[in-house]
Amino acid sequence: MAKFEPSEAVLSGETADVYFARTVEILGKERLNPVATMEVFSSRVGIICGIEEVKALLAKVLPEANREVWALGEGETMDRKEVVLRITAPYQSYGLYETAICGILTHCSGWATAARECVDAAAGIPVTSFGARHVHPSVAGVMDYSAIIGGCQGCSSIAGARLGGVEPSGTMPHALIIVMGDTVKATLALDKHMPPGVPRVSLVDTFKDEAEESLLVAQALGDRLNSVRLDTPKERGQVTPDLVKEVRARLDLAGFNQVKIFVSGGVDVERIKQFLEAGAPVDGFGIGSYITGAKPIDFTADLHEIEGKPIAKRGRIPGITPNPRLKRVL
Amino acid sequence: MAKFEPSEAVLSGETADVYFARTVEILGKERLNPVATMEVFSSRVGIICGIEEVKALLAKVLPEANREVWALGEGETMDRKEVVLRITAPYQSYGLYETAICGILTHCSGWATAARECVDAAAGIPVTSFGARHVHPSVAGVMDYSAIIGGCQGCSSIAGARLGGVEPSGTMPHALIIVMGDTVKATLALDKHMPPGVPRVSLVDTFKDEAEESLLVAQALGDRLNSVRLDTPKERGQVTPDLVKEVRARLDLAGFNQVKIFVSGGVDVERIKQFLEAGAPVDGFGIGSYITGAKPIDFTADLHEIEGKPIAKRGRIPGITPNPRLKRVL
Amino acid sequence: MAKFEPSEAVLSGETADVYFARTVEILGKERLNPVATMEVFSSRVGIICGIEEVKALLAKVLPEANREVWALGEGETMDRKEVVLRITAPYQSYGLYETAICGILTHCSGWATAARECVDAAAGIPVTSFGARHVHPSVAGVMDYSAIIGGCQGCSSIAGARLGGVEPSGTMPHALIIVMGDTVKATLALDKHMPPGVPRVSLVDTFKDEAEESLLVAQALGDRLNSVRLDTPKERGQVTPDLVKEVRARLDLAGFNQVKIFVSGGVDVERIKQFLEAGAPVDGFGIGSYITGAKPIDFTADLHEIEGKPIAKRGRIPGITPNPRLKRVL
Amino acid sequence: MAKFEPSEAVLSGETADVYFARTVEILGKERLNPVATMEVFSSRVGIICGIEEVKALLAKVLPEANREVWALGEGETMDRKEVVLRITAPYQSYGLYETAICGILTHCSGWATAARECVDAAAGIPVTSFGARHVHPSVAGVMDYSAIIGGCQGCSSIAGARLGGVEPSGTMPHALIIVMGDTVKATLALDKHMPPGVPRVSLVDTFKDEAEESLLVAQALGDRLNSVRLDTPKERGQVTPDLVKEVRARLDLAGFNQVKIFVSGGVDVERIKQFLEAGAPVDGFGIGSYITGAKPIDFTADLHEIEGKPIAKRGRIPGITPNPRLKRVL
Amino acid sequence: MAKFEPSEAVLSGETADVYFARTVEILGKERLNPVATMEVFSSRVGIICGIEEVKALLAKVLPEANREVWALGEGETMDRKEVVLRITAPYQSYGLYETAICGILTHCSGWATAARECVDAAAGIPVTSFGARHVHPSVAGVMDYSAIIGGCQGCSSIAGARLGGVEPSGTMPHALIIVMGDTVKATLALDKHMPPGVPRVSLVDTFKDEAEESLLVAQALGDRLNSVRLDTPKERGQVTPDLVKEVRARLDLAGFNQVKIFVSGGVDVERIKQFLEAGAPVDGFGIGSYITGAKPIDFTADLHEIEGKPIAKRGRIPGITPNPRLKRVL
Amino acid sequence: MAKFEPSEAVLSGETADVYFARTVEILGKERLNPVATMEVFSSRVGIICGIEEVKALLAKVLPEANREVWALGEGETMDRKEVVLRITAPYQSYGLYETAICGILTHCSGWATAARECVDAAAGIPVTSFGARHVHPSVAGVMDYSAIIGGCQGCSSIAGARLGGVEPSGTMPHALIIVMGDTVKATLALDKHMPPGVPRVSLVDTFKDEAEESLLVAQALGDRLNSVRLDTPKERGQVTPDLVKEVRARLDLAGFNQVKIFVSGGVDVERIKQFLEAGAPVDGFGIGSYITGAKPIDFTADLHEIEGKPIAKRGRIPGITPNPRLKRVL
Repeated sequence: MAKFEPSEAVLSGETADVYFARTVEILGKERLNPVATMEVFSSRVGIICGIEEVKALLAKVLPEANREVWALGEGETMDRKEVVLRITAPYQSYGLYETAICGILTHCSGWATAARECVDAAAGIPVTSFGARHVHPSVAGVMDYSAIIGGCQGCSSIAGARLGGVEPSGTMPHALIIVMGDTVKATLALDKHMPPGVPRVSLVDTFKDEAEESLLVAQALGDRLNSVRLDTPKERGQVTPDLVKEVRARLDLAGFNQVKIFVSGGVDVERIKQFLEAGAPVDGFGIGSYITGAKPIDFTADLHEIEGKPIAKRGRIPGITPNPRLKRVL
Repeated sequence: MAKFEPSEAVLSGETADVYFARTVEILGKERLNPVATMEVFSSRVGIICGIEEVKALLAKVLPEANREVWALGEGETMDRKEVVLRITAPYQSYGLYETAICGILTHCSGWATAARECVDAAAGIPVTSFGARHVHPSVAGVMDYSAIIGGCQGCSSIAGARLGGVEPSGTMPHALIIVMGDTVKATLALDKHMPPGVPRVSLVDTFKDEAEESLLVAQALGDRLNSVRLDTPKERGQVTPDLVKEVRARLDLAGFNQVKIFVSGGVDVERIKQFLEAGAPVDGFGIGSYITGAKPIDFTADLHEIEGKPIAKRGRIPGITPNPRLKRVL
Repeated sequence: MAKFEPSEAVLSGETADVYFARTVEILGKERLNPVATMEVFSSRVGIICGIEEVKALLAKVLPEANREVWALGEGETMDRKEVVLRITAPYQSYGLYETAICGILTHCSGWATAARECVDAAAGIPVTSFGARHVHPSVAGVMDYSAIIGGCQGCSSIAGARLGGVEPSGTMPHALIIVMGDTVKATLALDKHMPPGVPRVSLVDTFKDEAEESLLVAQALGDRLNSVRLDTPKERGQVTPDLVKEVRARLDLAGFNQVKIFVSGGVDVERIKQFLEAGAPVDGFGIGSYITGAKPIDFTADLHEIEGKPIAKRGRIPGITPNPRLKRVL
Repeated sequence: MAKFEPSEAVLSGETADVYFARTVEILGKERLNPVATMEVFSSRVGIICGIEEVKALLAKVLPEANREVWALGEGETMDRKEVVLRITAPYQSYGLYETAICGILTHCSGWATAARECVDAAAGIPVTSFGARHVHPSVAGVMDYSAIIGGCQGCSSIAGARLGGVEPSGTMPHALIIVMGDTVKATLALDKHMPPGVPRVSLVDTFKDEAEESLLVAQALGDRLNSVRLDTPKERGQVTPDLVKEVRARLDLAGFNQVKIFVSGGVDVERIKQFLEAGAPVDGFGIGSYITGAKPIDFTADLHEIEGKPIAKRGRIPGITPNPRLKRVL
Repeated sequence: MAKFEPSEAVLSGETADVYFARTVEILGKERLNPVATMEVFSSRVGIICGIEEVKALLAKVLPEANREVWALGEGETMDRKEVVLRITAPYQSYGLYETAICGILTHCSGWATAARECVDAAAGIPVTSFGARHVHPSVAGVMDYSAIIGGCQGCSSIAGARLGGVEPSGTMPHALIIVMGDTVKATLALDKHMPPGVPRVSLVDTFKDEAEESLLVAQALGDRLNSVRLDTPKERGQVTPDLVKEVRARLDLAGFNQVKIFVSGGVDVERIKQFLEAGAPVDGFGIGSYITGAKPIDFTADLHEIEGKPIAKRGRIPGITPNPRLKRVL
Repeated sequence: MAKFEPSEAVLSGETADVYFARTVEILGKERLNPVATMEVFSSRVGIICGIEEVKALLAKVLPEANREVWALGEGETMDRKEVVLRITAPYQSYGLYETAICGILTHCSGWATAARECVDAAAGIPVTSFGARHVHPSVAGVMDYSAIIGGCQGCSSIAGARLGGVEPSGTMPHALIIVMGDTVKATLALDKHMPPGVPRVSLVDTFKDEAEESLLVAQALGDRLNSVRLDTPKERGQVTPDLVKEVRARLDLAGFNQVKIFVSGGVDVERIKQFLEAGAPVDGFGIGSYITGAKPIDFTADLHEIEGKPIAKRGRIPGITPNPRLKRVL
């Protein structure tokens, strides 16, 4: 599975801090290329993500004959200050990529960790990553991939779904309803044109009261309606646990017990807990900026051995840091 | 200046939420392609960034004969809920790109705004973006570009510097010193091999006390030494205002008044203020995770007119939202 | 204007603390009935209310030939610990009523003070007291009267309106709409059966989205519609400033600029300020439990002179407490 | 036991919100009088009180042949949002009384709940309601009644005691002592003139130190002295646990072990706990404004069925809300 | 004025840190006795005190021919990190006394600074130091001296008064009253036996209510009574502003306008402000543990020059620290 | 063991509050010298210290034939308000010493209690009192003695060590290193001139990085080096747990496992806990201002019996306060 392919920009050092390019140049001119051991550790507790992408990069640049790479597994939990990656190889072969290695782990682990918090809070209710619109498109795919590593059941971006090995999921945007002028009409059009595999999910807060609109689309589609999605904007008080209960009760009263309720719109760990504590019958959560806006988890890389001899800068312990959880990956 | 070139992944809809792809497909089958006006507004106060990249995308996809795009200028301040972008064109030409448009603005504006806070706090002392190692390499360039839009004088990544139209800047990593085994030796090597245009900046906290090391490199390079960089790790108490004062005093006492002091390592707005309030003679700050870890600024896109008729979903005001600050860009 | 008529229960001492009844009995048996001066002071800053009712009681029980009563005026502001009432008369004539006098001032001043806070926050937008349902019916009238003294323009209870000298105001309850099954139908019935003086105000959150319902009743009644009342329950996120703006915009877009917007449902000083700060075009506020649930302002009564000689319990200053703001009222 | 008799003002609708009067009028003209089910629920956890008074009202107004009323029992605990009362009857027979029903429950439950908190904190030490002076005399009786429902052993108002079925209790006011000029003299006069059933309780903080005055009245009355009441004002530091201990010790040292100590003056739950934690030998607490100033507990009434068909406004679940704790009362 | 005489324990090094004794011994054996400059700086803002005592010590130990001492003046304000003392002399002559020098300044400046805060808060009302009972008797004198340097008008210890050049002041202890069994009797005995110069101040909270006791002693001594002292213990709620007002009013009412009111018992800056804000007519404050329990102000001593050459440990700036406020004192 | 000898200043009453001198004079003139019982109690929980010094004073001044003194033992824990000392003797024999008795206990108990907190936090790691420089030299000895009573294993002042029955301990001051110009040189000089019993402890933060300097002195002294002391100043970030770990690791790596690490510089309970929680291998802590700056624990003395008859001022319980923990000491 060659999921991650290092880009030309990374391989060329284009995305690196310039001083690594200079370092490699200086060492080359000094003819210094010792075997060096670099360790990378995490700044806080979380879920490690990005290891697969880093591995793909290292597999490409390290000399096969003279390399050893140890790492935690993708998606494992990691402790504060725990070493998650250890590379032993001639320094010139990988020195240029310190920036990229740290950056991949930093962004991906931040997203995966936030996703895991939502998944844990949801206690079994499926969580879908809906945040592609809140990150630069160049990382929309890896963000959604990281969310899936963190435990999300699905994601909305096509790129992320492919990296994560799932079908992309989503309902319909408000735009479709506004262009068609009516929620029922838009839902019927979706039902008509989409292949059977795509679940019929109707977004029910565009023009009318959510409970009213839920009943209207349920009456229009009957058994074919899979779910309604509640996405009430902040200007209208967001989706509340009581709204979910009421829509559930009104759907049931009208005999639509099979229609599920999917909740989105500013959902975060705190609100997931409120829905659960209030006993609101939610069938799925869509999470956006809680994951995309999560604080990245910074990683730090340090040299700990040069030609087998312990060394380190001030503030670090010279020599290999023992970590029995690491597995050899290259 | 064709700085920003939309990637194939964006143009193909690969990075989009899948429901936009479906929407465009449904509308196509329904033969609906009305001229629609979409407005994009910010969730909080900040510096708008990403407009140039969005413009490059729209220029490529909108029909030249039937389009109108209005926007704030790159780097301008924006208010909470202010409309920063308005697109009027046949909906099918741009509906697929709502995800990318919001994502570009969200990430870039978050970084630019955080950079601006540092620059404002630094009150004239140059600020350099050093955070490439804290973001995924796919966005290292746009992150550094955004920091420059926010007011940073330079950045460390080669990609960011090219987008921002500056020279990449940086000193040397701890790795160079550790590989060479000695700070003075590493600094002399840098001096020997780098072209004259690269400023001689020595990192002085690797093996010895910062003040001692500063004097040693100053004595070794003499007039050629441009600056020392203090980057004391947290384990050793980080760089303090008093350390800067002391290094300055000891350099001056030894006659090295021309050597500048550059400070990095966990620097944020709070600490910049502490340095300034304490009167520490800092000549430059390097900022990493304060910018890269800044909360993205979410943007929301809504349709407000269809074929010239006001419309909107619940929670929004139908019709064009007046904003005299917008300029026509396409 | 004999607005306040002391009830038999008060006059008989039925509502008094039993120890005052006993005190009057003991003093009678001891043949002690000195002229005594009692002062009543407030426990905190506020609006004095209840003075008129106390005056009506004292006018009935004090001997006309041997009495002197000084007081602040109904609705005046009072300071913490300020003396608001001073009675000089034979002690047996009024000793029994200390409980009632303090109680009237305590409850009424608490309500009036809370009302004033709302009125001040509303900065000119009319405020109506809607809290009769949150107090025991025996005090519904005086509560609404106190709210009017505090600055409310109207109130919903018939009893309160009569004491306050205004017309009772109100729209329609949800019950009418539910019994009739439809908001438009209920509004038309009200229009048909109520005399012309009663303003046509329609409650628009019962069955449909508030904005939708507003347009429906406006279309049904045309020029005769005076206002819509928004009363969204907490379960649906309460009325937000953005909802008011949106309903205003949609009404205006449809040409119903004359229809006013009245806001109720958990409104308090904090929320009034939020509406004003957000620039929401509210035409009237209905306040319930902020006024009715206001902390009563306790009053304390003390004897300060007996037969013209200064005396006081520990913790009080013997003799008359000077207060030039007092006016003689009996 | 016909304790509660609806007043004319309530029966006539005088104390109601005017819009209920109008609703009944409109429905009459429309000849609409469906059997409707109204449910009343509490806004927070507490002790339900006022049910007896509501029952007396409904017994008078509902048609005997066509009514069903279910309720919690007076003094029971109730949960947040729990339905405490359900009325099924022709709407016109009770629509006018929604204001009064909610108001009675609101005020009485607030008082009863606060009383219960004090009683719980006092852990067996008797608590007496002393707050008649802090409420309007029109509700002094029901306030004290509610306090007794909440667990108070007695109350000071004659009206409250009658409703609660107890003897009114109280000691003597400062006024008696001031008029008589001496605490011992006043206590002797009370002893002389009051029937034997009235306990001899002396208030001992008027002119002299509390400990000194306690000994003086104990020496004057000997075995006949039941208790001393400490009521030190805030200006003198209120009653402290240490003062109680000291008075107890000095009384015991002088052989007056039988004299009890009763504490009043700004006593609340917090201070009751402090007395108990400090081990102060208090024999009774008198509570005033903690009960009278308690936040009322708002109640909400909603129609849930019309002619047996589930219905409800937005934010409510249509149909009967199951609550097995309700008992049929009419 | 030879007020401060260094004790034998200090001169012998008995009170010093043992490592200074060792240092002097080592340097002696190494025959190293360079002229060294030591600077002493303060850890926070305050009032410098102890300089006179330090000067007396240095005058005794430094060689007259080869010494230079610069210092701030006793009682001056000092800034955080300000150099308050600079000694230049052969190191062996004073090295042993670093402990004593820092210790004297630390304790005395802490007390003087706290006293100054009280004096500033009292805004002209005289403040007396009453804290001798809260410090070890070996420093009772210097503590009271420091309080006087900080602005206190007097103190209670005989030793402190002599150092501060004032008469010791004080009233009478509770012990005198308890031994004599009566406040009036004790006050009359004091009046009888004390010389005329000692002001007649009576402590009026021992056996009876403060206001009552004040009147009793005023009646007993008439014009000879200078003041009453209120010292109500915490168990009785401490002295409150209202108590002072009441005692003043009762004394005035009885014609004793000349009797002053002196307040003590747990008085601190916060409470002084409360008395002043409440307008309580206090004529003097007695301060105990606010001064004695004040955090000492640590001082740090560092060598900055050896034989005229700048030097310093890490964390300090080598060479003389300029401070134009210093005056030469030896 | 005649450790504590009352000074002439204490015996003469020089350090007493002047009003006790006056009281004794008045009582003498009145020929009143009853046997009186005085009790002393603590204002808060802590470790009692100073009892031995008080006992030495009382042994000298109380008449042997007519005295009884009960007390807690030196170093025992005491409760808030617990009686720690009870004296029964003719009042004139000890009245003058109330000030000194309270003062001794106050200061000493404050220091001992703070020391105990450090010792408890250190959980077995030895703690040394290093604060002589932060107290007036007149109490440097008793402060260090109190710290030892509180559990410190040693102290730096010679006077304190003698009172506490231990050897004074300490390393070397920065001054020695600065005068000698080099840490290694200074350590070698100490090694050469000090007797074998003095442990070789080198202070390693003066001129170079702590880790570097540690290795240099270890290499110079070899097996003779007992410990290094880390005392990094605040200007350089203080000693951190990570620094200790790193120095330990670097010493071990170089084979100096026997060298201990001693930490000082602003160490308090909070920081001790941080070192322990972080697992930093500290071998000893030196505590300065946490002990010396500890809030003194005020003590209060009251007469409770005169000639065997219970008596007390207001706020106190007359008669002996039972305390079975007291032991007869005189």
